[in-house]
Amino acid sequence: MNTFEVAVWADGHLRMLDQRVLPHEEVSIDFFSAEETARGIRDMVVRGAPAIGCATAFGVAVEAFRIAAQGIPASWPDAMAPGLKALEESRPTAVNLRWSLERMRPLLVSTAPREVPQRLLAEAQAILREDHEACLQMGRHGAAVLPDTGNRPLTIMTHCNAGALATGGVYGTALGVIRGAVDAGRKVRVISCETRPFLQGARLTAWELLKDGIDTTLITDNMAAHLMSQGLIDVVVVGSDRVAANGDAANKIGTLGHAICAQRYRIPFMVAAPLSTIDMKAPDGSHIPIEERPETEVTHIGGKRIAALNVTVRNPAFDVTPAELISWFVSEKGAMERPSLEKMRSLFHG
Amino acid sequence: MNTFEVAVWADGHLRMLDQRVLPHEEVSIDFFSAEETARGIRDMVVRGAPAIGCATAFGVAVEAFRIAAQGIPASWPDAMAPGLKALEESRPTAVNLRWSLERMRPLLVSTAPREVPQRLLAEAQAILREDHEACLQMGRHGAAVLPDTGNRPLTIMTHCNAGALATGGVYGTALGVIRGAVDAGRKVRVISCETRPFLQGARLTAWELLKDGIDTTLITDNMAAHLMSQGLIDVVVVGSDRVAANGDAANKIGTLGHAICAQRYRIPFMVAAPLSTIDMKAPDGSHIPIEERPETEVTHIGGKRIAALNVTVRNPAFDVTPAELISWFVSEKGAMERPSLEKMRSLFHG
Repeated sequence: MNTFEVAVWADGHLRMLDQRVLPHEEVSIDFFSAEETARGIRDMVVRGAPAIGCATAFGVAVEAFRIAAQGIPASWPDAMAPGLKALEESRPTAVNLRWSLERMRPLLVSTAPREVPQRLLAEAQAILREDHEACLQMGRHGAAVLPDTGNRPLTIMTHCNAGALATGGVYGTALGVIRGAVDAGRKVRVISCETRPFLQGARLTAWELLKDGIDTTLITDNMAAHLMSQGLIDVVVVGSDRVAANGDAANKIGTLGHAICAQRYRIPFMVAAPLSTIDMKAPDGSHIPIEERPETEVTHIGGKRIAALNVTVRNPAFDVTPAELISWFVSEKGAMERPSLEKMRSLFHG
Repeated sequence: MNTFEVAVWADGHLRMLDQRVLPHEEVSIDFFSAEETARGIRDMVVRGAPAIGCATAFGVAVEAFRIAAQGIPASWPDAMAPGLKALEESRPTAVNLRWSLERMRPLLVSTAPREVPQRLLAEAQAILREDHEACLQMGRHGAAVLPDTGNRPLTIMTHCNAGALATGGVYGTALGVIRGAVDAGRKVRVISCETRPFLQGARLTAWELLKDGIDTTLITDNMAAHLMSQGLIDVVVVGSDRVAANGDAANKIGTLGHAICAQRYRIPFMVAAPLSTIDMKAPDGSHIPIEERPETEVTHIGGKRIAALNVTVRNPAFDVTPAELISWFVSEKGAMERPSLEKMRSLFHG
C-alpha cells in the first residue's frame, strides 16, 4: 500500500504534497506558519475533510514553533489568535477543520507555556494516527456490508477523492472501504467519476487506486446515471465533508445527483466518514454552509479557458444528500443502516 | 437574431462552421465530397441531430456534383453508394442522418440523370428551410406550455447544445423554446450545463445565447441536482438525437440524470425535437444504438491530459431518458404532454 505525505511533520515544519498538480507532478510544499497553512488549505494544496483536519492541527503546531522561536509569549491564546482565525476561515464546509481547532485550543492554556509547541505537535501527531486507525476501521466495517455479487466482481462507483489523499495519507474513507473489500479478498472494480470542476476523481482517485493495482475506470460525472440504468454499478461509496445530526451528508458537488439516481435504480448508497466529520450542532443539512469557489475553476482547465467569454458562473463546491437517500453511514464505530438522529446520537453515547 | 453557417451551400460546395474550436475561434471548413463530409460529422465539426441531418443532405449533394464533374455516371445509385455508406456510418445515434439519406436516396432514380446534382441540392436546401420552420414552430409550441412563474423570471436549465448550432443555424430546438419564450415577452434566465466531455454547453450554448443577449449562467453538469434542490430551476428543456416510438428519448450523456433529479423535485422536463428525430422503428429506447466515442475526449481537454495515466475510460456519448420522465415532448406539430406510443403515432397520422 502506498502512503502519501498529505500533511506530515518534516524538518520542524508542515510538509504537504501539492494536490493541485497531481498526478502530473509530485511536488511537496513546506509551511512555516498558520497563515501559510490557511492559504494552502484555501487554495487546495490539501483537500478532503479528514486531511484538512490533520493539516489544520499541524498548522497550529507550526505556528506555535514559529512564535516560540521569538520567545515564549505572555499569553499563548493571544499570540495564537490571528493564526487560529486564519485557519478557521480558510474553508467553511469541512467541519473537521473546526473539530481539529477545538481539540488543539484547550492545550494552549492547559500546558506549561514552554511546552506548548511540543504538546501541540504531539496532539497533531495523535490526530494523524487516530485518522489512520479510523480509516482502517471504516474500511473493515464498510466492506462487511457491501452487496454480495456472488462470483461476479463487485463494481463500486465513487465520486471525488475520499482516499489516502483526502485523509492522513493512508487508506482513506470511501476508498478505505474499497481497500477493505480488496483486503477481504473481494474482486473489485471501481468507477471513478472525474468530479468537475477540480477533477479530483480523474486526477487523484484514479491515480491512487491504480498505484494500488485496483481496476479503475474513469467516467465523466454525467455518465453515472447511464451506467446505473445499464446495471453496471453495484454500489456507490463516497466520503463526506460534514454530516448533520440527522444523517444528512454534505459532500463534493455531484454527490446528491448520484444518490438520487442510485435510489431510482435501487443501488445501495454508502457514506463513509469518521466521527470528526459529524456536526451534531447542525440539526440537518440546511445548516451546513456550502462554499462557493472561484469561477475560474469552472471556466478554465489547466490555465486554459474552456467557456464562452462573459458568461456568469456558479461554483458551489458541495451539495447535501438527505439521510433518506443514504443506505449506510460508515464510521470507525461501525456500519449504520439508514442514518437517523437517534442512531447518530448513539455514536457519541455508546 | 444571429444565424450561423452550420451547414450551408457556398461557392458550389458544403461549408460548415468548425464547432470544435468555438467559441475561441470562428473558422469555417469547406467539404468537397461525401467522404470528407462523413469525416467532418464523425470528428464533430458539426454536431446536433438536426444539423447532422442538414449536413448529410448537403454532403450527398456535393458528392453528386463531384461525380458529375467527371461525367454523368451510368448508374447514380452505384456511383453514390460508397459516399452514402460513409455518411451513414459516420455516427450511429442521431437518426436524422439516416432520415436525411432516406429522403435523398429515391431522387437518384426518380430524377433525370443530368439533373441529379441540382435536384439533390434543391432537396438539401428544402431540408434546411424545413428545419428552420420546424424550429420556429417548436419554439412557439414549447414556449406556450412553460411554467407560469408570475412576476418572477423563468429559469430554464438546458444540457448540451440544442440551439442554432445544432440545427440549420437559426433558433434551435431546446434553445428554440427558450427563444420562443423570449419572443413571447417572458423574462428568461438560462442555466447551461457545461456538458462534459465535449463541453457543448460551456462552449456553444453559452456563446450563442449570450450573442442573443439572453441571461446565461454556466454550471458543471453535476451542480444541476443541487440547484434543483434549492428551488433554483423552474423547468428543464433539452433536445434529442433519436426519439423511440414510445417516447423514450436519447440525448447527450447526462440528460438521464437531469431527468431523474427533475422528477424528484417535481420540475417539468421538456424534450424538443422535430419529427425527423423520431424513429418509429425503434419500439423503445433500448433499441437506440449508443455511440462510444474516443477516450481522449475524457482524458484530455484542449490537447492537455487531465486524467491519471493508464486509467481505463468509458465514453458513451448519449443516454436514454424513459418517456415516463418526460413531461412534454415538443415537435413542430405541437406540445404533447406525457409522450406515449399512441400519441407518437398520432403525429404521423394526424
